[in-house]
Amino acid sequence: MMDQKFRNCIEACLACGIACNKCATECLNEDDIKMLARCIQLDRQCSVICFAAANLMSIGGEHASHLCAECAEICRACAEECEKHAAMGMDHCKECAEACRKCTEACEAIAS
Amino acid sequence: MMDQKFRNCIEACLACGIACNKCATECLNEDDIKMLARCIQLDRQCSVICFAAANLMSIGGEHASHLCAECAEICRACAEECEKHAAMGMDHCKECAEACRKCTEACEAIAS
Amino acid sequence: MMDQKFRNCIEACLACGIACNKCATECLNEDDIKMLARCIQLDRQCSVICFAAANLMSIGGEHASHLCAECAEICRACAEECEKHAAMGMDHCKECAEACRKCTEACEAIAS
Amino acid sequence: MMDQKFRNCIEACLACGIACNKCATECLNEDDIKMLARCIQLDRQCSVICFAAANLMSIGGEHASHLCAECAEICRACAEECEKHAAMGMDHCKECAEACRKCTEACEAIAS
Repeated sequence: MMDQKFRNCIEACLACGIACNKCATECLNEDDIKMLARCIQLDRQCSVICFAAANLMSIGGEHASHLCAECAEICRACAEECEKHAAMGMDHCKECAEACRKCTEACEAIAS
Repeated sequence: MMDQKFRNCIEACLACGIACNKCATECLNEDDIKMLARCIQLDRQCSVICFAAANLMSIGGEHASHLCAECAEICRACAEECEKHAAMGMDHCKECAEACRKCTEACEAIAS
Repeated sequence: MMDQKFRNCIEACLACGIACNKCATECLNEDDIKMLARCIQLDRQCSVICFAAANLMSIGGEHASHLCAECAEICRACAEECEKHAAMGMDHCKECAEACRKCTEACEAIAS
Repeated sequence: MMDQKFRNCIEACLACGIACNKCATECLNEDDIKMLARCIQLDRQCSVICFAAANLMSIGGEHASHLCAECAEICRACAEECEKHAAMGMDHCKECAEACRKCTEACEAIAS
């Protein structure tokens, strides 16, 4: 019923939504939160859109294109921000950036 | 902080998400569900996207345009389907169609 | 940071939320939807609570117990309903029932 | 179909979910975020549970009691934290605390 492209995207969105939630929580436990404020803000938006995209695609795929376009865009912004902190040794940002990159790719395959 | 256009859209999305959930539940209590299958399916998708849009806009507006474009599109499809059944006397479809029309308008104001 | 019990439960909740959404969509494509109305209604409720539980647990575990208690209860009710239809050959109900049973167990481990 | 108690609770949950999202975003724009880390963390959890409760209650009320019990508990914790910062002049925390108090009351009316 649902083809492989949708299955991949649902899985990538769920993994990304979870990674973003965990990253934001761990950012809030760091010493210098101010430096991470943009990261937390993007994590929160990314989590909302990722769960919504997975939810919508598992109900039906006919309206997924715009939502996946938006999801890819937010994931890319979140990955870029997380990568800055990953380079400074923050593992939660590294994991989150990887999940965001995979999700960007999977969403672009649906959006296009 | 958030301008009036966003406030209106958040309110319209929440009202529409609730109306869609109630409409689907009441459709499932009708005698001829088969005739309402498309309506229930659109209600489910519309509810997911409306709650996600309200959620995202209340976190921050910078990524709302694509999501609101999608939301407007699903709301319009749901309104059109519900209006068919409203014309046959189904009050939950009438209420849902009205909420969907308002939400379409509010989302288009953000998306454009 | 998050222990294995939470990881298992998050995974089970996400798989169950997706299975419920797919089951409801496929129920709406069956010939005798009326017989499946209770199943669709439980699928919808189960999906909402499963995604919320996964979302909440990935933010933080300190408030998960009541929510997981509720999730276990809805999943059990959904599994019981789906198993009736699975016995009559409906594969989407069979898959959904299995996901619901796993999620019930994982949520009970958190709730207790 | 849905009685007044549920209508009140749905409305209170939606208002609270939105207030929590806005509070967290505005906390992230303050100078001393570290002092607000617990507030942001509770806002995030409160928002998830409030939207889930409103979503579930609008689908059907038969499984709402545990979820509303949890929602009342998180809202109370969030209100207590926000009230500390409201006393120091933060308006977003004041608004959020008020929405959380109303939601606690409305959820307790369902849970009991």
